[in-house]
Amino acid sequence: MFLRRIFGAFPQPKRMFSSNGSNVLASAIAELNKEMETVFGEAPPSSLASSAGSDFVAKESQLSSEKIGDTASSLTHTGSMGESQMVDVSPKESSNRTATASCKVMLGKKVFDLVLANQMAKGDVLGVAKIAGICGAKQTSSLIPLCHNISLSHVRVDLTLNQEDFSVTIEGEAASTGKTGVEMEAMTAVTIAGLTVYDMCKAASKDIMITDVRLQCKTGGKSGDWSVEV
Amino acid sequence: MFLRRIFGAFPQPKRMFSSNGSNVLASAIAELNKEMETVFGEAPPSSLASSAGSDFVAKESQLSSEKIGDTASSLTHTGSMGESQMVDVSPKESSNRTATASCKVMLGKKVFDLVLANQMAKGDVLGVAKIAGICGAKQTSSLIPLCHNISLSHVRVDLTLNQEDFSVTIEGEAASTGKTGVEMEAMTAVTIAGLTVYDMCKAASKDIMITDVRLQCKTGGKSGDWSVEV
Amino acid sequence: MFLRRIFGAFPQPKRMFSSNGSNVLASAIAELNKEMETVFGEAPPSSLASSAGSDFVAKESQLSSEKIGDTASSLTHTGSMGESQMVDVSPKESSNRTATASCKVMLGKKVFDLVLANQMAKGDVLGVAKIAGICGAKQTSSLIPLCHNISLSHVRVDLTLNQEDFSVTIEGEAASTGKTGVEMEAMTAVTIAGLTVYDMCKAASKDIMITDVRLQCKTGGKSGDWSVEV
Amino acid sequence: MFLRRIFGAFPQPKRMFSSNGSNVLASAIAELNKEMETVFGEAPPSSLASSAGSDFVAKESQLSSEKIGDTASSLTHTGSMGESQMVDVSPKESSNRTATASCKVMLGKKVFDLVLANQMAKGDVLGVAKIAGICGAKQTSSLIPLCHNISLSHVRVDLTLNQEDFSVTIEGEAASTGKTGVEMEAMTAVTIAGLTVYDMCKAASKDIMITDVRLQCKTGGKSGDWSVEV
Amino acid sequence: MFLRRIFGAFPQPKRMFSSNGSNVLASAIAELNKEMETVFGEAPPSSLASSAGSDFVAKESQLSSEKIGDTASSLTHTGSMGESQMVDVSPKESSNRTATASCKVMLGKKVFDLVLANQMAKGDVLGVAKIAGICGAKQTSSLIPLCHNISLSHVRVDLTLNQEDFSVTIEGEAASTGKTGVEMEAMTAVTIAGLTVYDMCKAASKDIMITDVRLQCKTGGKSGDWSVEV
Amino acid sequence: MFLRRIFGAFPQPKRMFSSNGSNVLASAIAELNKEMETVFGEAPPSSLASSAGSDFVAKESQLSSEKIGDTASSLTHTGSMGESQMVDVSPKESSNRTATASCKVMLGKKVFDLVLANQMAKGDVLGVAKIAGICGAKQTSSLIPLCHNISLSHVRVDLTLNQEDFSVTIEGEAASTGKTGVEMEAMTAVTIAGLTVYDMCKAASKDIMITDVRLQCKTGGKSGDWSVEV
Repeated sequence: MFLRRIFGAFPQPKRMFSSNGSNVLASAIAELNKEMETVFGEAPPSSLASSAGSDFVAKESQLSSEKIGDTASSLTHTGSMGESQMVDVSPKESSNRTATASCKVMLGKKVFDLVLANQMAKGDVLGVAKIAGICGAKQTSSLIPLCHNISLSHVRVDLTLNQEDFSVTIEGEAASTGKTGVEMEAMTAVTIAGLTVYDMCKAASKDIMITDVRLQCKTGGKSGDWSVEV
Repeated sequence: MFLRRIFGAFPQPKRMFSSNGSNVLASAIAELNKEMETVFGEAPPSSLASSAGSDFVAKESQLSSEKIGDTASSLTHTGSMGESQMVDVSPKESSNRTATASCKVMLGKKVFDLVLANQMAKGDVLGVAKIAGICGAKQTSSLIPLCHNISLSHVRVDLTLNQEDFSVTIEGEAASTGKTGVEMEAMTAVTIAGLTVYDMCKAASKDIMITDVRLQCKTGGKSGDWSVEV
Repeated sequence: MFLRRIFGAFPQPKRMFSSNGSNVLASAIAELNKEMETVFGEAPPSSLASSAGSDFVAKESQLSSEKIGDTASSLTHTGSMGESQMVDVSPKESSNRTATASCKVMLGKKVFDLVLANQMAKGDVLGVAKIAGICGAKQTSSLIPLCHNISLSHVRVDLTLNQEDFSVTIEGEAASTGKTGVEMEAMTAVTIAGLTVYDMCKAASKDIMITDVRLQCKTGGKSGDWSVEV
Repeated sequence: MFLRRIFGAFPQPKRMFSSNGSNVLASAIAELNKEMETVFGEAPPSSLASSAGSDFVAKESQLSSEKIGDTASSLTHTGSMGESQMVDVSPKESSNRTATASCKVMLGKKVFDLVLANQMAKGDVLGVAKIAGICGAKQTSSLIPLCHNISLSHVRVDLTLNQEDFSVTIEGEAASTGKTGVEMEAMTAVTIAGLTVYDMCKAASKDIMITDVRLQCKTGGKSGDWSVEV
Repeated sequence: MFLRRIFGAFPQPKRMFSSNGSNVLASAIAELNKEMETVFGEAPPSSLASSAGSDFVAKESQLSSEKIGDTASSLTHTGSMGESQMVDVSPKESSNRTATASCKVMLGKKVFDLVLANQMAKGDVLGVAKIAGICGAKQTSSLIPLCHNISLSHVRVDLTLNQEDFSVTIEGEAASTGKTGVEMEAMTAVTIAGLTVYDMCKAASKDIMITDVRLQCKTGGKSGDWSVEV
Repeated sequence: MFLRRIFGAFPQPKRMFSSNGSNVLASAIAELNKEMETVFGEAPPSSLASSAGSDFVAKESQLSSEKIGDTASSLTHTGSMGESQMVDVSPKESSNRTATASCKVMLGKKVFDLVLANQMAKGDVLGVAKIAGICGAKQTSSLIPLCHNISLSHVRVDLTLNQEDFSVTIEGEAASTGKTGVEMEAMTAVTIAGLTVYDMCKAASKDIMITDVRLQCKTGGKSGDWSVEV
C-alpha cells in the first residue's frame, strides 16, 4: 500500500524522485509490496500503483501534490505520518501468546569483577535490574507509540554473569492471552533491565555497551511459533 | 565499602566463600575498591575490611551471618539489596550538563528497503521512533529505579538510514541544568527509539537487532567532559 | 438517587435550600430523576425522596444534616463527593465497542499557512500530533478519574487541514472488546492531538483555539449504536 | 528554516510542487519565515532558501531528493519529522512564569440542571473535574511530546456553572519558575477538567461539547506578558 | 477562610446546620481558624465570617445557598471542592529540605520466619520492597492530587526485620532543594514499600497489616526542623 | 523451594549459617515449606532440601558458593533476587474477583474538627482523598513491582469520619474478571486515599498517622472467599 502510494505521489517522470530512482525501487517494491501490507495495513481500495505516472486522485493521507502546487486549497489530510496507526486487532482471535527476548551488556573486566563481587553478597546490580525489567514490561504500551496496551499474565527476567566475555546476559519473557503478541513486552523488559545495569555501573566505566537486543522465540498468534535459528 | 563488606561477611576461613576465592577477588578488589565507593556510596565509618576473619559487628545492610546462626534474634536490616539507594546529590554543585548516546538497529536488506521507501514519502518509521525517543527520555526516572527525576532543558533524537549495512543509526542528546548527569536520559532516548523502530518493522522480519547502545560523550558535572575514543 | 437525596438533605422548609427553590428544582428533578440514576448509579433501597421534609435516616455518603446540627457527633461518611465512584461494570456483557470523536483547532491564516508549508515537506505538526493522540488514548484511564482502565484493540487519529477556515480537523477512533464504552478514549485522543497542534504552533500565535470537541458516533454496548445528527 | 528547506527540497521547476505553487507560498513565506525560526528553531548555517531551484546540498533531516533518485545510496537522515525536537531552553533565563487558559463545556439544559442540582449538595461533577484538571496539569509533559518536563509551583482550576447558556466555564492557571513557559500546563489542566465533566455527564447526553479551549493570559519569559484582547 | 465561609454558608439560624451546632463548632473554629488558613490558603479579602447570619454575597466557590433557593439563576462556581487547589509556592524561598517517614508491616510469626529465611539467602521480599519504595517516592506527585511535582536529590528506603514482634520496620527519607517540603515523598516511599511487602507475602497470610505510617522528622522550609517526640 | 535452597546454600556445617541456626530454622521450615511454594513458585525438579549439608549442585539463581570460592569462573545467574518473578497466571481460570481493604487515619482532635467543619460544607479533604484512592487503584501495577496489570471492572472508595477516636476510616473495594486477584488494588486504593488525607491535613499537625491498612475480605479465585475474623 505504501509503496504503491509512492508511485502515486510521483505521478510524472522527472519529478522529485526521478523515474530512474523509481525504477530502481520498483524492482524491490514488486517483491516486497505484499509484505508491506502485512506490516502497515491493507492496500487502498483502488490500486494506486497502477496509476503511477498517470492521473492521480488524492486519497486520505496522501500528499496530493499536484493540487497543492496549483491552488493549495484542496490540500488535505494527515500528512507524512498518515499511516501510522495502531493496528486494529479487533477481528483477531484471542490466543495464548508468549515471547522471549534477550540482550547482552558488555561490562569489561573491571566492572564485571565489581558486579561479580557485589552480586555474590548483595545482588544489587542484577537484582535491581531484574525488577526494573519486570516493571518496564508493564510500561511497554506507554513507551512504544503504536503498541497495544494489554494485560500480561506473566513476566520473567533473568540475568546471568558471563565470565568468558565479562558480560551480563539478560533474558526476558512475557505472556498474555489476547489478540496481540507480546514481543515488544519481552523486548522492553530486557532493554530496561539492560539500561538499569548500565545505570548502576556507569560510574565505574563509560565504555559499557548494550548489544544484541533481539527476539529469541515466540508462540501463539496467527503467524504461529517462531524461534531464532542457531 | 561493598567489597570490604564481603570480607566482613565471610569472617572465618573455610566458610561460604573460601579464603581461596576471597584472595583471588582480593587482588582485584584492592585496586577497584576506591572506584566502587564512587559507584555505590561511601565506605562505612569503621573499616570492615580490616576485620575480615575476625570479630564482626553487624552494620546496617550487612548479613550479620554469625548471629543469625546463633539466635536469629539480632537479624537486621535491609538484606541483600541494602545499598541500592538513589545517590544523594544534595551536596553537588548545579551545572549545565549534556550527554549524547547512540545505538544501531540492524534491519537487514529487505526491511531496510521497505523503511527507505516508506521513509522518503512518509517518514513513518523513523518519524514515530523519533517522537518515541523524545518522550522516552522524559520517562527515564520512572523506568530506571535509582535514576533521579530531573527537568530536562533539551532532548534531541535523530535517526539515519545507513545503506552500507542496512541499519538505522540513532543518536540522542539530553541536556539539563542540575546536580546530576543526563547520561541515562540520552541512553533511554535512543533505546526507546530503537524499540519503536523494531515495533514498526517486526511484522516484516523477526531478525532485527538493536546493538551498540552506548554513551558517545558527556559534558558538565564534577567528572567533567568525556567522549568515546574513536 | 442523587436528586432524592437532595430532598433528604433539606428535610425542613425554610432551611438552607428553601422550599421555594426545592420546588423549582423538583419539577426538573421529577423527569430527570430516572436518568440521573443511569448516570450516577442506582437509587438507595429506601426512597429518600419521599421523606423530604420529614424524618431522615442518615445513609452512607449522605450529609445527615440534622444530627450534625444537634451534636456533630454522628457526622458520618464520605461527604460531598460521596457518590463519585467508578461505575461497576462487572455485571455488564462484553461486546465489541467503537467510538469516534472529533475536534477542530482554529489556527488562523498565518499559522495555517505555516503548518501547510511545513506539512507538505515534513508533516511535523500533524504527524507529531497524531502520535500524541494515539498515545493519549492509551492514557485515558490515568487522566479521567472515574474512567475504567481497559485494553484497546484499536486507536486511529487523523488530522486534516481545512483551507476554508484555516483549521485542523482531528478525528479519533477507539475500539475495544469489553464491558465499558470507549467514548472517553476517542475524546481524549482528539483532545491530546489538539493540544499537541497547539503546542507546536503556539510560538507563532497565541490566538489558536481548540473547539467542538465532541462525540461523532459509537457502536456496541447496551445503549447500542448512536451517531450525531447532521 | 523549514520554509527555506522546502525550496531546497524542490530544487527544479516543474517538480513535485510546481513553481506556481511555490511562488504562491513564497509570498507568504517571505514574511513568515522569521517567525518560523522562532517556532521551530534556527535556520541552517548555509541558507538553503537562496539555493531554491539550484544546486542543493543535502543537510541533516533533508530529503536529498536528487541523490535518492540517482543512487539511493546516500539517502540519509531522520526523514519527515526531522525537525521535531524539543526546543533547547538551556540558554534561556530562568524567570517566574504564569499562564491562564480557559474552556467551556456546553451541557445543554437537561444536563445542566442535573449538574446544578447535584452540584449544590455534593459537587460531584465539578469537584472531580477540578481535581482531574490539577492532576492533568502535572502530566502535561508526558502527554505533549515536545513539552518540557518542569516543576510547577502552582496549579489552580476553577469551574463555574453558567445558567445563561447551560455551560460550565473552566479556568486553569499554572505557575513555575524556570526557563520555559507554562501555557501547555494551563491548557492541559482545563482540557482534562473538561473531559472529566464530559465523562461524568455522558450517560445523560451525547451532545455535550467542549469548546473554546484557549489561552487567556501569560506572564514572564522573554516574550513578556500577554493577554487575550476582549 | 474555610471556617469563616461555613458561617457564611449558614447565614440564618435554624437552617441546615442549626445555630447550636455552629456554636459548638465556633469555639473550636475560633482557635483553629488561623491554622486553617495555613493549611488551605489565605482568607478571602472581605471577611465572610462577620456576615454570618446576615446578608451574604456569593463568592467564588461558595454555596450561595439563598440565591439558589430563590432563583437558581445565579448559582455559580466550583462547588464543594472549590478550595482544593495546589498551594502556590511561587513566593516561597528555595531551601534544602529532607523528611523521614516510617511504617511497620506486621507479618505474624509464620510469615516472618519465611521472610527471614528467604531474606538471608536472597533478600527477595525486602529487596524488592526497597526498590518499589524508591520508585514510589518519585511517583508521589502523580498519586497525591495536590502534591507538587518536584525533583528529588535523594531517596533512601531501609527495611529491618524485627524478631520481637515479627514485623518489618520501613524507614524512608527524601531530600530536595526547592520551595516545597518532601514529607509526602517520604510517606509515599514507606507506604509503597509496605504494600510491596504485603504483596509478596499475601499468599502466605491474609492477616498482614501495615501500621504506624507517619512522619519521623523533617528539616528545612519556613516552618523549620521538626522531629517526633519519643 | 526457597527454603530448600537455603539448605543447599549452606552445604557444610559450621559454615556461614551454622548448623545450629539452620536447625532452628529447619523446624519452622518443615511445616512452612509447602506454603512457601505457593507464595514464590514451584520447587526445583531435584529436591535440594535433601542435599542439605551434603553435595550441592548449583542451580539457576543459586549462589553456587563453593565454586565461586574456587574459581569464580562458573558463577552464574540472577543472583540474590533470582526468584522475584511475577507469578505466571496463564494457566489460571478466569473468574469474578473482588477485594475489600480498609485503613484508618488518626487525625487527633484538632485536625478532626477542622476536617469535620470543612467536610460538612465542602468535603474537600475526604472528597479529594476519595478520588485519589480511585485513581491510585488504577496505578497499582505500576507501583507494586510484581503485581499484574489488569482491567478493573469497579473501584469504590469510601471515607467516614469517626468522632469517637478522631479518625477517618477508609474502605476500598476493587473488582475484576480475570486470572488474578484484586487485593493489591483495594489495598493501594485505601493507602493512597490515606496519604491524600495526610497531605491535605499535614500543615495542621505532623502527628497524623495512617494505621491498620489491611484486607477485609475477598471473593473469587482458586483460594475462594475469605473475610477477616471479627
